[in-house]
Amino acid sequence: MASLRDHGLRIGELEPGPAGSIADVEGVRVGHVTIRRDEPVPPDGRGVARTGVTAVVPGEGGGKLARPLRAGTAVLNGVGEMTRSLEIAEQGVIDTPIYLTATMAVGRVYDGAVSAAMAADPAVGVDHVVIPVVAECDDSWLSDARDVQLEAADAGRAVADASTDVAEGAVGGGAGMVCFDYKGGIGSSSRVAGGSVVGVLVMTNFGVRSQLRVDGVPVGRMLGEARESRSRPAGSCIVVVATDAPLSSAQLTRVARRAGLGLARTGSVAHDGSGEIFVAFSTAGETGDVPAPDLNAFFAATVDATEEAVLNSLWRAERVVGREGRVCEALPHERVLELLALAGRLER
Amino acid sequence: MASLRDHGLRIGELEPGPAGSIADVEGVRVGHVTIRRDEPVPPDGRGVARTGVTAVVPGEGGGKLARPLRAGTAVLNGVGEMTRSLEIAEQGVIDTPIYLTATMAVGRVYDGAVSAAMAADPAVGVDHVVIPVVAECDDSWLSDARDVQLEAADAGRAVADASTDVAEGAVGGGAGMVCFDYKGGIGSSSRVAGGSVVGVLVMTNFGVRSQLRVDGVPVGRMLGEARESRSRPAGSCIVVVATDAPLSSAQLTRVARRAGLGLARTGSVAHDGSGEIFVAFSTAGETGDVPAPDLNAFFAATVDATEEAVLNSLWRAERVVGREGRVCEALPHERVLELLALAGRLER
Amino acid sequence: MASLRDHGLRIGELEPGPAGSIADVEGVRVGHVTIRRDEPVPPDGRGVARTGVTAVVPGEGGGKLARPLRAGTAVLNGVGEMTRSLEIAEQGVIDTPIYLTATMAVGRVYDGAVSAAMAADPAVGVDHVVIPVVAECDDSWLSDARDVQLEAADAGRAVADASTDVAEGAVGGGAGMVCFDYKGGIGSSSRVAGGSVVGVLVMTNFGVRSQLRVDGVPVGRMLGEARESRSRPAGSCIVVVATDAPLSSAQLTRVARRAGLGLARTGSVAHDGSGEIFVAFSTAGETGDVPAPDLNAFFAATVDATEEAVLNSLWRAERVVGREGRVCEALPHERVLELLALAGRLER
Amino acid sequence: MASLRDHGLRIGELEPGPAGSIADVEGVRVGHVTIRRDEPVPPDGRGVARTGVTAVVPGEGGGKLARPLRAGTAVLNGVGEMTRSLEIAEQGVIDTPIYLTATMAVGRVYDGAVSAAMAADPAVGVDHVVIPVVAECDDSWLSDARDVQLEAADAGRAVADASTDVAEGAVGGGAGMVCFDYKGGIGSSSRVAGGSVVGVLVMTNFGVRSQLRVDGVPVGRMLGEARESRSRPAGSCIVVVATDAPLSSAQLTRVARRAGLGLARTGSVAHDGSGEIFVAFSTAGETGDVPAPDLNAFFAATVDATEEAVLNSLWRAERVVGREGRVCEALPHERVLELLALAGRLER
Repeated sequence: MASLRDHGLRIGELEPGPAGSIADVEGVRVGHVTIRRDEPVPPDGRGVARTGVTAVVPGEGGGKLARPLRAGTAVLNGVGEMTRSLEIAEQGVIDTPIYLTATMAVGRVYDGAVSAAMAADPAVGVDHVVIPVVAECDDSWLSDARDVQLEAADAGRAVADASTDVAEGAVGGGAGMVCFDYKGGIGSSSRVAGGSVVGVLVMTNFGVRSQLRVDGVPVGRMLGEARESRSRPAGSCIVVVATDAPLSSAQLTRVARRAGLGLARTGSVAHDGSGEIFVAFSTAGETGDVPAPDLNAFFAATVDATEEAVLNSLWRAERVVGREGRVCEALPHERVLELLALAGRLER
Repeated sequence: MASLRDHGLRIGELEPGPAGSIADVEGVRVGHVTIRRDEPVPPDGRGVARTGVTAVVPGEGGGKLARPLRAGTAVLNGVGEMTRSLEIAEQGVIDTPIYLTATMAVGRVYDGAVSAAMAADPAVGVDHVVIPVVAECDDSWLSDARDVQLEAADAGRAVADASTDVAEGAVGGGAGMVCFDYKGGIGSSSRVAGGSVVGVLVMTNFGVRSQLRVDGVPVGRMLGEARESRSRPAGSCIVVVATDAPLSSAQLTRVARRAGLGLARTGSVAHDGSGEIFVAFSTAGETGDVPAPDLNAFFAATVDATEEAVLNSLWRAERVVGREGRVCEALPHERVLELLALAGRLER
Repeated sequence: MASLRDHGLRIGELEPGPAGSIADVEGVRVGHVTIRRDEPVPPDGRGVARTGVTAVVPGEGGGKLARPLRAGTAVLNGVGEMTRSLEIAEQGVIDTPIYLTATMAVGRVYDGAVSAAMAADPAVGVDHVVIPVVAECDDSWLSDARDVQLEAADAGRAVADASTDVAEGAVGGGAGMVCFDYKGGIGSSSRVAGGSVVGVLVMTNFGVRSQLRVDGVPVGRMLGEARESRSRPAGSCIVVVATDAPLSSAQLTRVARRAGLGLARTGSVAHDGSGEIFVAFSTAGETGDVPAPDLNAFFAATVDATEEAVLNSLWRAERVVGREGRVCEALPHERVLELLALAGRLER
Repeated sequence: MASLRDHGLRIGELEPGPAGSIADVEGVRVGHVTIRRDEPVPPDGRGVARTGVTAVVPGEGGGKLARPLRAGTAVLNGVGEMTRSLEIAEQGVIDTPIYLTATMAVGRVYDGAVSAAMAADPAVGVDHVVIPVVAECDDSWLSDARDVQLEAADAGRAVADASTDVAEGAVGGGAGMVCFDYKGGIGSSSRVAGGSVVGVLVMTNFGVRSQLRVDGVPVGRMLGEARESRSRPAGSCIVVVATDAPLSSAQLTRVARRAGLGLARTGSVAHDGSGEIFVAFSTAGETGDVPAPDLNAFFAATVDATEEAVLNSLWRAERVVGREGRVCEALPHERVLELLALAGRLER
């Protein structure tokens, strides 16, 4: 399927990497386990599953990273969960993949992430313990959340599935997510900043339709109201930023904070009940810091790539019918392209 | 001068108040002291003054508020200063006006703010002490900053000047500020959210031209490079948010955090060397809290009004020649209107 | 068993409540599930279990509180985990019990806590989701952590076990914890401050012996070195503070921060690898705030009760033999009492 | 005058450096300007001055450091002010001395600090601007604060006065401060941790007498009530931590946070109206980080040295009669030594 970029959309001034995804950062792979179950259990329609787990695997080692990677985290609105947040704030490293899943499945994915870490490293649980990174959005509008439909082992399966070919849309943790009242989910993008790469992966579950902007064009207002939608603008958005530049954890914290600016450009006002939670990590082994002035390129790359990743999550997601027959439409491609063309936003 | 709104620009979905400025929040007034001095002292051109101080006065009492007002603060990038930040974070109140000035003048304005508080209240310095709110941006590209060209007494003069007729552009603390390589300074805007008003006043000193967006249209890239500009994207932006709704300090903190989303929409990536520092306060005396779901309207109002206030600071500021003959151009109104019209952004 | 208080020790100037535990706060109950398994699986000694989960249940409702309670959180050193930290920081409420367990069991207890919430409230997972509070210390020096020895259902069992008779020492989440190289675990204490009660419950797993102070007496240095101890001062300490006073979440945040001062008095320097993580909640339904000056009594009560709760966790814990035959001695009661008497710290 | 250490008191397990002050960190010097004026202006007793400013000068350069030094900051209770806090949090460096003064004099000292920076470096105000570090406690119980009795130039004079011979007690910024209802002020101490030095300087203005502990001995309760005292436990304490170890700003932030644990040991509960604000800096030029496990020695050194510095501020301060004839007694040396000896706390 042709991407928005293929159609001529150019977000910001920087160029993407060759894959146009977080996998442009060398060593980073993404895996998904998607749970789709269509047979509701009578009489209440529960049991329909549109859920899953996505693992961002930053380097070798599987469920336990071969070495800790420097990381930083930021919160725009904190009505959500990302485990290991406290430890990243204190010591600035991660040592497991980053898992994205549904709110009610956090415990199970955490448990599976611990198992995956033990499977990968016999010293885990003997010489030291692990606190994995597990972040969530709430997919319970489409998916029955009273049955936690994931198993703990799905965390390890998502890691095993990881590849540099990043599937987007209604897959993995994004299977049941809703963004600007359209079907959202997983999106990814990248930018080259100086000699380094910044890659972004998002799980989108936020926004109300009228606020949607595509590269500054307020298409949401022009597309008409959603036929049915969540009663409250619940929403959440997890953003994972990866780079191969040797940023310190303090610098990665500052990079992570810029993810919110990318969300703002798509129309987010960070609703009261949402969890806009961001984590950035560096795959560089060296401890050298990027001199401060150069950070501006990383900041711009993060904002642009976040904006494009959100759009990609919408662009790639197909219409989903969920629990109780609820319908979440896909973004109408043709209409959006028309509006962008009218506004002069598509390069030929 | 017709405003961007007069020309048909509509930022977001909410309506502004009657004045379209922070003065739409009842009791809030704004005063300026502007220092312009054109005779440089030979031979180095120093002594040219394009500086000043702006006071946002939230209610009666002059230099000392008649009663403390609940407040919250947030930082997007902290390379800057706003005094009383720690105390607002801890106890959630302010008890003086909010002063905006040049970086090197913070001490002198602080000292004058303390004098103004003592003048207004004989108990200050006897029964209790005050920590005023003084925030800054760096105007030293246009104004000679080695001579701190303000006097302490200018703080009180700005309070005495306060009125509901809010001057914008190159006035007060904004006299020497530069925004997206155009002349910036003071801008203001407002929105009605439910039965309440959200007013915003900004002091803009950030951005590089190519990143400027007006209501989503990337006009910066279309306007060509600045003939001369600051060597580094220094930048800073202070945002003051006022509301008459009885928000708690925790809620005001969350409102303040949304100011950064408004900056993002204008093109900010929050440069490394900048100080994006925000303060929000409520003029309501009641202690009742706004129920959480209603906050979304305040969040949207803050984002929209911040975006429009930044644009107003650019729209209202005229070309300024500063120290060493440096020229900062005004935003080219006609060209911007053409680009907005082409993109379909102006309502008729 | 006579307590330190029974022996005449008086920590601070305030009086405890009648039970001398967190259960002095009306409605608060504590339950434990303790897993002790002695048959190691040859040949590596793994499988020995000294672990468990403790639930602090603040009011009616079981696994889902009947109504959200205001809460605040603070971190002295963040190398640890407490889920829901982000949401407490943002919205200032909890809606589940607080669970304390072993590091590697967090996921499983979280999963069980979600199940307990669903069991208690049919709307969970349908109309809204829950993020439970699960905090941890690392008991893997004594307990085999490669087998996560808890089941998810143990979370609900701990809630079902909750009573106002608070067991202390090597029970529940404290079964395998080590404090100042002595056996630690669960401790509790309370103070009356004005007409209100402050109750504290701790899970202690921190410190090196030479730094232990009992009411200011450096008994650790006088007691001689531990025969065997953890190679690194790992340590962590979770502190739960409860009060019946109608504090706001901002005030509870400030109360939670004082827990660290109580730890300091026992000798903690908050080691690099530890997680000193604190949560405070109010059982009061009213939204009125305690006027600021009165907070000082709550602060003193929190510091004193935290100090005494740590000492109680040591005093109540018996010698434990753990994995690979590792021995953790109990605090030597007689010798400690002698040293306290010599220093004049015991009232008759 | 013999110090508490000379009398046999040993705080913690680490040894101090040769000077037993912050000047044990090579290059760090301390200067004071003390304003004592005894002629009150009739009829209201105003005009009595017991105030001043203290400058901690970390290396060469006078009012502008020869190179920026890495720094971190932490707040235990934020009802106070330390300028540059936001910038230290963001970029982790300081480039001026650290100034300690009275609340109402912050603006004037800030202004003088800017002048001192310009005097030291002709590029200040031309190529870049400075935000100096100015922290405060409230000395207005003893000193008339309606006349801001310092001049801006006193900031530079304090820098010019700087030496490695650190005066303690009622000098400089500490001239009018009150601690545990005794005369407090400036105190300093140091510890050797590994091959590095940790030095601490405090300005003490906190506590109520009954809570005072000296090395764990609750002497406050034994010394009887103060004849007159501040109506509210106002209080504040600024702590400056210096080290020659090459800690990162993130590590220095963590070191700064430990200062509060030292205050706790002296009896602080961090009163509601106080400003416990801490800054730590490193004089090391190298960018190498101290490996994490070694941080524990720095943490212990910081806690111990902070505790001892507070005690030194009390021990060195003499009785002061202030405005309106208010009397602040000195700590009664003989009685305190008796109580310490009785508790077995003095080594022979």
